Amino acid sequence: MPSIRDFAIDVTTGGVTAPAGFTSAALHCGIKAAPGALDLSVLAAERTASAAALFTTNLAVAAPVEVSRAHLDRTSGRARAIVTNSGCANACTGDDGLANARRMAADTAAGLGCSPEEVLVASTGVIGVGLRMDKVSPGITRAVAGLARGKGSELARAIMTTDPFPKEHAVSVNTSAGTFVVGGAAKGSGMIEPRMATMLSYLTTDADVPPALLRRALEESARDTFNAITVDGECSTNDTLFVLASGASGVRITEDDYPALLDGLREVSRELAIGIVRGGEGATKLITVTVRDARSDDDARQVARTIANSPLVKTAVHGADPNWGRIVASAGRAGVSFEVRRATVRVGGVLLFENGLPHDDAAPLAAEHLKQKDVRIDVSLGAGGTGAATIWTCDLSAEYVRINGEYRT
Amino acid sequence: MPSIRDFAIDVTTGGVTAPAGFTSAALHCGIKAAPGALDLSVLAAERTASAAALFTTNLAVAAPVEVSRAHLDRTSGRARAIVTNSGCANACTGDDGLANARRMAADTAAGLGCSPEEVLVASTGVIGVGLRMDKVSPGITRAVAGLARGKGSELARAIMTTDPFPKEHAVSVNTSAGTFVVGGAAKGSGMIEPRMATMLSYLTTDADVPPALLRRALEESARDTFNAITVDGECSTNDTLFVLASGASGVRITEDDYPALLDGLREVSRELAIGIVRGGEGATKLITVTVRDARSDDDARQVARTIANSPLVKTAVHGADPNWGRIVASAGRAGVSFEVRRATVRVGGVLLFENGLPHDDAAPLAAEHLKQKDVRIDVSLGAGGTGAATIWTCDLSAEYVRINGEYRT
Repeated sequence: MPSIRDFAIDVTTGGVTAPAGFTSAALHCGIKAAPGALDLSVLAAERTASAAALFTTNLAVAAPVEVSRAHLDRTSGRARAIVTNSGCANACTGDDGLANARRMAADTAAGLGCSPEEVLVASTGVIGVGLRMDKVSPGITRAVAGLARGKGSELARAIMTTDPFPKEHAVSVNTSAGTFVVGGAAKGSGMIEPRMATMLSYLTTDADVPPALLRRALEESARDTFNAITVDGECSTNDTLFVLASGASGVRITEDDYPALLDGLREVSRELAIGIVRGGEGATKLITVTVRDARSDDDARQVARTIANSPLVKTAVHGADPNWGRIVASAGRAGVSFEVRRATVRVGGVLLFENGLPHDDAAPLAAEHLKQKDVRIDVSLGAGGTGAATIWTCDLSAEYVRINGEYRT
Repeated sequence: MPSIRDFAIDVTTGGVTAPAGFTSAALHCGIKAAPGALDLSVLAAERTASAAALFTTNLAVAAPVEVSRAHLDRTSGRARAIVTNSGCANACTGDDGLANARRMAADTAAGLGCSPEEVLVASTGVIGVGLRMDKVSPGITRAVAGLARGKGSELARAIMTTDPFPKEHAVSVNTSAGTFVVGGAAKGSGMIEPRMATMLSYLTTDADVPPALLRRALEESARDTFNAITVDGECSTNDTLFVLASGASGVRITEDDYPALLDGLREVSRELAIGIVRGGEGATKLITVTVRDARSDDDARQVARTIANSPLVKTAVHGADPNWGRIVASAGRAGVSFEVRRATVRVGGVLLFENGLPHDDAAPLAAEHLKQKDVRIDVSLGAGGTGAATIWTCDLSAEYVRINGEYRT
């Protein structure tokens, strides 16, 4: 469960360049067909920054994922920049794809005057198509030459593929050691074109954080944010979450201040993650599924995830049908032990199921709630524990099928 | 993998009453609103038969599942009859529901002159609504009075809810010990009305089989048939598979003849299981997903199931899009270890992915195949083993969303 915040956090403006010590640039290099469509971006730290990453758990990983993972290993968690192209995932592209991803890093490093291993690489777009390096390389040179502060919003647009809107967020965190800023940008689940490889998320902070602590904070903050969302249960070849810490605020994060860093990363991550769900394919509603009173947080997470991925629950919400039966049935098949007659189900706070029996008279009130764009499903397992978890998902609409089922060949 | 048949198997006519020693009756008792709609049935063995069952693995189980499980335990695998109502699942109905399920068994037993524990009970239909026993009890009395041979097809219709067509099948199995018959009927995945509880399947045979052997054969035959299908990855509160063995053929099944029994059960089960998929909600295509060259059959099964449940694969097939990228990506997230560059993907026998790279020139041929109603996806993991498995599923259409998302309150 997202903890109650311990630190004063204020929303601020901007995204990845809101924290001090970062510049960015975005341009059209020609990967996307539409004239002027942003398809290349560089995010740079003014000095070498601490860096950490989480990558897709899919065995089928794109070339940029392989290259970035190797670079972070060799630098022990240090990076100067992230170079990203959209419109082409550089996945299932063999040895040529690996060479192209390495060249993207080398071109960026040449412009910045750093080692290629200090550059992280990401790609998003169509799978199985090679990068046009005759367009990408000159684009990178131009981008590095144009790096500037305050242009993070352009980066948030340049990493989009078929996302309906850009996603960025930033907060300032006030601690006894001083104030630091966390910013971020993300692109999500637009698989409108076939074989699109999906999520990229970048977090930045001007806190001064050792790489090991940064990695721990990234993993812990992702658990209840980026790893707590699902659009359709799929996991892509390119999913990447990066964080860079410039240290430019002068606020040094030690073990004592770790909770403040975690809160800041969580706050920005949650906003971006929810943005990805709202922008999910065919989505018309954000569904917040919370499971409580489980024997462990893991149990709660597993039940919440099963409910959130249930096509029958998702279609019921789409149709504003307060179908507690589908919620009970999906909880029951989650592989977690609990007694159905001790469980309760609430939709929009309205109690629909208790003591193994329905409260059908409450259904009209719950149906009214389901007509809103933000929908809540709350399940108590009554399993005698305090385990809890929240998963965010969206409804399943005929539009999802249309988007992903159009004939393409 | 379904084994190559070792025994001569001939398709014969009829369903559950094709084997000797069984009678059935079906009628309208008034649970379904439509006048004359069949909603009650009894399947009876002329003498006490060997019996075995597999039930839903959902924690939320309907009253008839609890009662049938207890009865089979107490009789150590013996039964005289199965009584079934459709139109009401008797699930999430509390203690009244349990009492009603027990009364269905008692009413049937009274008519047959056997112990109530020798009667198995099944219900299918809306969840959370109680049975009208003032209609069900007289219905059972009438049904038992009307039991006759050769009426299995009426039972196959009487167990339907919103299934688009009835499903029944029968075969005769020729062994050195003699010929016996296996028959069956099933109802499937019609959740058109909200909270519908789904699969019921009944198998019968006139072979003479000890209960323990019958149970083992049921579990083994279900693995590659009823447990190898998925419509939407959901698992209901009422899913039940019963088998009754009358022994009326005089063909005694020993360890030596076990493979013949297994082949017969498998043959009927596969036909019924595929029928359930074809009749899946909004389904327009049957998809046969076969995974080979895995380290184990379990590995292959897990990959095949992940592909078969992938909404992106199911929508691509719906749109006749030979999207090998989605197949590779879903295999890659199945939690099974293999090297993507050793894997191959074929659609309709057409090689689309090999050595980590696509064969895009073959896509038009694969797209032609996908326009058919029967579609094949074949994946070789190249993992150095001989593990293999087949899973049957259907495409995901906008009609599925319409059926399950209609506003109901």
